[in-house]
Amino acid sequence: MPSSPAPQPQPLTPQDLRLSCRNGTHSTTTSLTTPTVQCNLLVLPSRYAPSFAQLCARNPVSCPLLYTTLPGSKTTPLASGANLATDLPKYNVYKDGKLLPEGDGIASVEEYWTEDHVGFLIGCSFTFEWALAAAGFPPKHMLCEPVRCVPMFRTVIPLFPAGEFTGGFLVVSMRAYKEGDVAEVRRITRAFGRQHGEPVAWGWDGAKLLGIEGKVREGLVDFGEWVGIDGDVGEVPVFWGCGVTPQVAVMESGIEGVAISHVPGCMFVTDVPVEEESSLKL
Amino acid sequence: MPSSPAPQPQPLTPQDLRLSCRNGTHSTTTSLTTPTVQCNLLVLPSRYAPSFAQLCARNPVSCPLLYTTLPGSKTTPLASGANLATDLPKYNVYKDGKLLPEGDGIASVEEYWTEDHVGFLIGCSFTFEWALAAAGFPPKHMLCEPVRCVPMFRTVIPLFPAGEFTGGFLVVSMRAYKEGDVAEVRRITRAFGRQHGEPVAWGWDGAKLLGIEGKVREGLVDFGEWVGIDGDVGEVPVFWGCGVTPQVAVMESGIEGVAISHVPGCMFVTDVPVEEESSLKL
Repeated sequence: MPSSPAPQPQPLTPQDLRLSCRNGTHSTTTSLTTPTVQCNLLVLPSRYAPSFAQLCARNPVSCPLLYTTLPGSKTTPLASGANLATDLPKYNVYKDGKLLPEGDGIASVEEYWTEDHVGFLIGCSFTFEWALAAAGFPPKHMLCEPVRCVPMFRTVIPLFPAGEFTGGFLVVSMRAYKEGDVAEVRRITRAFGRQHGEPVAWGWDGAKLLGIEGKVREGLVDFGEWVGIDGDVGEVPVFWGCGVTPQVAVMESGIEGVAISHVPGCMFVTDVPVEEESSLKL
Repeated sequence: MPSSPAPQPQPLTPQDLRLSCRNGTHSTTTSLTTPTVQCNLLVLPSRYAPSFAQLCARNPVSCPLLYTTLPGSKTTPLASGANLATDLPKYNVYKDGKLLPEGDGIASVEEYWTEDHVGFLIGCSFTFEWALAAAGFPPKHMLCEPVRCVPMFRTVIPLFPAGEFTGGFLVVSMRAYKEGDVAEVRRITRAFGRQHGEPVAWGWDGAKLLGIEGKVREGLVDFGEWVGIDGDVGEVPVFWGCGVTPQVAVMESGIEGVAISHVPGCMFVTDVPVEEESSLKL
């Protein structure tokens, strides 16, 4: 494993990157060199919009809601000229809470996003990774060649229900750090309150609290890619809330009709510089 | 069990009730006939105020923060002429996260509340009980003679940590309802978003999710009083977030110095009519 992030050819601006995703010439948004705010996407029939907003309000650590479109609109002031139905690398499409075989990891959801659909942008921990790296704590998945997607786990912690969203469990992203560095890592991400903020748990006791000790010890990720935890050098797992959580809520709650999400790790890249993240309203 | 709440001699106004609590002539705030917003109280050394506010923001279902005093102040605009250090029926005092033997259920905390202490008022489910009763769903503990305090359970669901608050578990209040009434009961309390809002779980599967099925089946409450669940008539447990949660966080996190709380079930009664609850800012 190299000691600094591997250089990657990347579009230089968020606009170029979104265009590359739209054209199918770029397929990941992990470890970008241009630090702007990244977002999780969930798209629902409008009748679910009030309950989903309430689900976010009741579960703000995993579901920090940053922006809600008008029904049928695929644009956002967070990203100039963006089309939310084409500018993410990959999408998932669900029908009645089940992932459609023909909607598994597709490049555009133009044909599924109707005039009745509402898009929700939710904060993402990719946003604070640049700050961790800048402070000398680059997540290990950024150091892999090629870079990997952060490992994610579905926990046994139930979401606080809201209206039709009666099912679902907290999903967490995991980054390994030395036990002695956890306090500083907590301090760094605390500032990113709209991007999951401080960790939700850490250490093996933390993994136990979340009901995922076995999966983490064996590297059995539910989403993303495994990168290892090196106990010999004192590394322990550190867990953050994750915006894949609403996807699980859609499936566990059996939300009727067509829903759309990003594919875990394939985010929407905004124009908002990470340093201006705190200007985003919750 | 009678079919309507047992009449109780009660002070008629919130002001009179607070004065009766101050004078030691009234000792409970459950099942009041004057429906005003009730609050949980937590008082901390000022250095913990930023982290506690963050704990509330990250755990808004159990810790909906309604008001924060200035350091040393024991007043609030929510209650005319009130003294937060004397006007609750009973208080608990903690030192370094441990309940003090001499501060267990005392009538005044004037001697513990220093110029450096900050008081936090947190929403309480007692506030929505009048609405449940008015809609024909009076909680069973209100129907007992004498009225009892709602049963409360400490769950295995960890709080989302914030700063020094690294420990703690969700506490829930429990009310038994017929399975067929749960949807309507959910709908009624949903409107009280600053008072724990909709239930967090219901039914025996819900009790399992919270890790408290055994305790609930056996009636082993952690706080409050047991009232029974009558399975023969189709009753199941319904659980709401509870403002005793911050007390557990203080103890589990080993918060240093002197902290103060209400005794579970012995709340701070405000002047705010329940119908105006939605005017309170979070």
